[in-house]
Amino acid sequence: MSFDTPIERRGTHCVKWDSMEQIYGVSKETGISMWVADMDFATAPVVNKAVQDMVDHGVYGYFGDDSKYRAAIQWWMKERHNWDLDPAHIFTTHGLVNGTAMCVDAFTAPGDGVVLFTPVYHAFAKVINAAGRQVVECELTQENGRYEMDFAAYDAQMTGNEKMAILCSPHNPGGRVWTRDELQQVADFAKRHDLVLVSDEIHHDLVMPGHKHTAMALIDGVQDRLVMMTATTKTFNIAGSHSGNVIIADPVLREKFAARMAAMGLSPNSFGLFMATAAYTPEGAKWVDELVTYLDGNRRLFDDAVNAIPGLKSMGLESTYLAWVDFKDTGMEREEFTNRVEQGAGIAANHGPTFGTGGESFLRFNIATPRARVQEACDRLAEAFKDLQ
Amino acid sequence: MSFDTPIERRGTHCVKWDSMEQIYGVSKETGISMWVADMDFATAPVVNKAVQDMVDHGVYGYFGDDSKYRAAIQWWMKERHNWDLDPAHIFTTHGLVNGTAMCVDAFTAPGDGVVLFTPVYHAFAKVINAAGRQVVECELTQENGRYEMDFAAYDAQMTGNEKMAILCSPHNPGGRVWTRDELQQVADFAKRHDLVLVSDEIHHDLVMPGHKHTAMALIDGVQDRLVMMTATTKTFNIAGSHSGNVIIADPVLREKFAARMAAMGLSPNSFGLFMATAAYTPEGAKWVDELVTYLDGNRRLFDDAVNAIPGLKSMGLESTYLAWVDFKDTGMEREEFTNRVEQGAGIAANHGPTFGTGGESFLRFNIATPRARVQEACDRLAEAFKDLQ
Repeated sequence: MSFDTPIERRGTHCVKWDSMEQIYGVSKETGISMWVADMDFATAPVVNKAVQDMVDHGVYGYFGDDSKYRAAIQWWMKERHNWDLDPAHIFTTHGLVNGTAMCVDAFTAPGDGVVLFTPVYHAFAKVINAAGRQVVECELTQENGRYEMDFAAYDAQMTGNEKMAILCSPHNPGGRVWTRDELQQVADFAKRHDLVLVSDEIHHDLVMPGHKHTAMALIDGVQDRLVMMTATTKTFNIAGSHSGNVIIADPVLREKFAARMAAMGLSPNSFGLFMATAAYTPEGAKWVDELVTYLDGNRRLFDDAVNAIPGLKSMGLESTYLAWVDFKDTGMEREEFTNRVEQGAGIAANHGPTFGTGGESFLRFNIATPRARVQEACDRLAEAFKDLQ
Repeated sequence: MSFDTPIERRGTHCVKWDSMEQIYGVSKETGISMWVADMDFATAPVVNKAVQDMVDHGVYGYFGDDSKYRAAIQWWMKERHNWDLDPAHIFTTHGLVNGTAMCVDAFTAPGDGVVLFTPVYHAFAKVINAAGRQVVECELTQENGRYEMDFAAYDAQMTGNEKMAILCSPHNPGGRVWTRDELQQVADFAKRHDLVLVSDEIHHDLVMPGHKHTAMALIDGVQDRLVMMTATTKTFNIAGSHSGNVIIADPVLREKFAARMAAMGLSPNSFGLFMATAAYTPEGAKWVDELVTYLDGNRRLFDDAVNAIPGLKSMGLESTYLAWVDFKDTGMEREEFTNRVEQGAGIAANHGPTFGTGGESFLRFNIATPRARVQEACDRLAEAFKDLQ
């Protein structure tokens, strides 16, 4: 089984492929789906075997004793991210959208401001708004073709009503791997404005060669306001398991979070627990290394091909498999470039404005698919914009 | 594969067997676990096949298009419970503890009273208390050896601070299948005191021959305050999937609930969706019929054997696989009869007081296990209390 092997996902209740036509008007028969952030690859064999073992046993009762699960998380974070954590600090939520929502619920009150560095993963704003809190958009700047942060501007934006900041690290979209210095500045910013800092590091395992992710937990002076969020779901392509980890070292924050978990009656499903325990192992790590190598090949192919199209600019991916393409230099209205991608090239890609301010001229392309399909997508894009040559 | 075939659950992260020694001091080697409400049986083959299909595909991405899932629920409720429901009224929560918690969160405010008919499933009080609401215990009465309700007494208890009532129907523990007339009285009670009525019907498929469950949704005059809760998890022994359905016909209540689901960032895991779609089929129904026949045999054996022990009284199970045994007539202190069961008979059973007022002299025994083990448990109980002969 290689990442090159295509797996048919249509007709499998897969939102990425099965809802493409309804949402984007891109033909289910001939279209290429590059929106939802899951991969068209099978999960690691060691993870799939964990589910096979469940099937072979056939009893799907209540899960008990999660010490191996917690130990596996601890091992992975130390081994892969040089982060020592206490297994007792882990909460397992139903994925990290729920994890984010639980943070908003536990640490802010209705009307409070929550800082996002936009453009950013759209679900953050969704749960903040749904909870009756205020999204405070701190817009990323572009320097040397990549996103950076402008803390002087953000400082000027703060009103005192802000109670939390959510950082996406590595960043989605745009794929920035924040440097240690940048992370220190985020931590200082949170401290200056007395914000709980939620660091969503769901993409931390998918970092391209030459870049190094630093866990926010390793940054000085932020432990007393820090909430770390990690998951197996992006790394191992098991988003359907809806399982994520919220890890809190600070006892005061941890107690508040625990109280809300209890009030919400949340406890993890056994699939996520078994799969994570299998994933966070040397065998899982080996698979991730192979995956990242493959994704690196895909992003080189995609970036080179897209950047060769006049008017299109793909932000160099340092992490994630979510390419962020700016169509600004085509001079086209959003409707036109989007239409060329969807109807011309037959590609479903996420619309930039969904990610907040700064995303207006972008589309996000998921390149975690067999390379031949990435090549096909690039060819179609070149064709759809060939009049710009 | 028959229900008689023992399946080893020890060492499988099964809370029921693997935590028995730690919690009850009952030997893992020789003890019999009869506490946690899951069954020692494999799930229905049709459900297990759904997970096998997932393994064979190997991609566990985001689930899309749940129309078949919703249609399966609709079909089951009509076919098995004569209940016509609109698939658009279904919310899928992470099991029904989370479902209950979401109801408490959506329909009450801190400090509000929530009525429980005790003794009752312990998780209700847990989430109510954790959410800072007040548990209002309306105690069930015993008539003719079974639980009944005393609405005159409950009316006298109400202070006006109560905003919700949670009914367990069929009832856990005690196994009452409430009659249509009783359900109408519950509905009237909810109306009189302007309570949102949450009807947890998780055991509705496990009804013994000679009894008939009536869905609260079929009761007149309660639609505008009714929240129905159902799940595949108890019926098909898939509690680990953490998936439940909260079904709300009233548009005002539905809108409130939907808003809280969005704010909590809750969406269902794909395992629960695939398993439920497979379960709620004619093939699943046939398996449930066989299961209930088997459980009926178990409860006859258990009730007869236990009731033959002087001082012990097993409440006749009309539904569920959770036998509720009163030790009051032994004249023993709780510590003594509990110690005889745990240390003498080597059986782990739930302690009655956990279920609230009225449970003090009881233990709850889970009889969803191969019949030979039920027989062994009965023999051990007879031996442990033989001095009462």
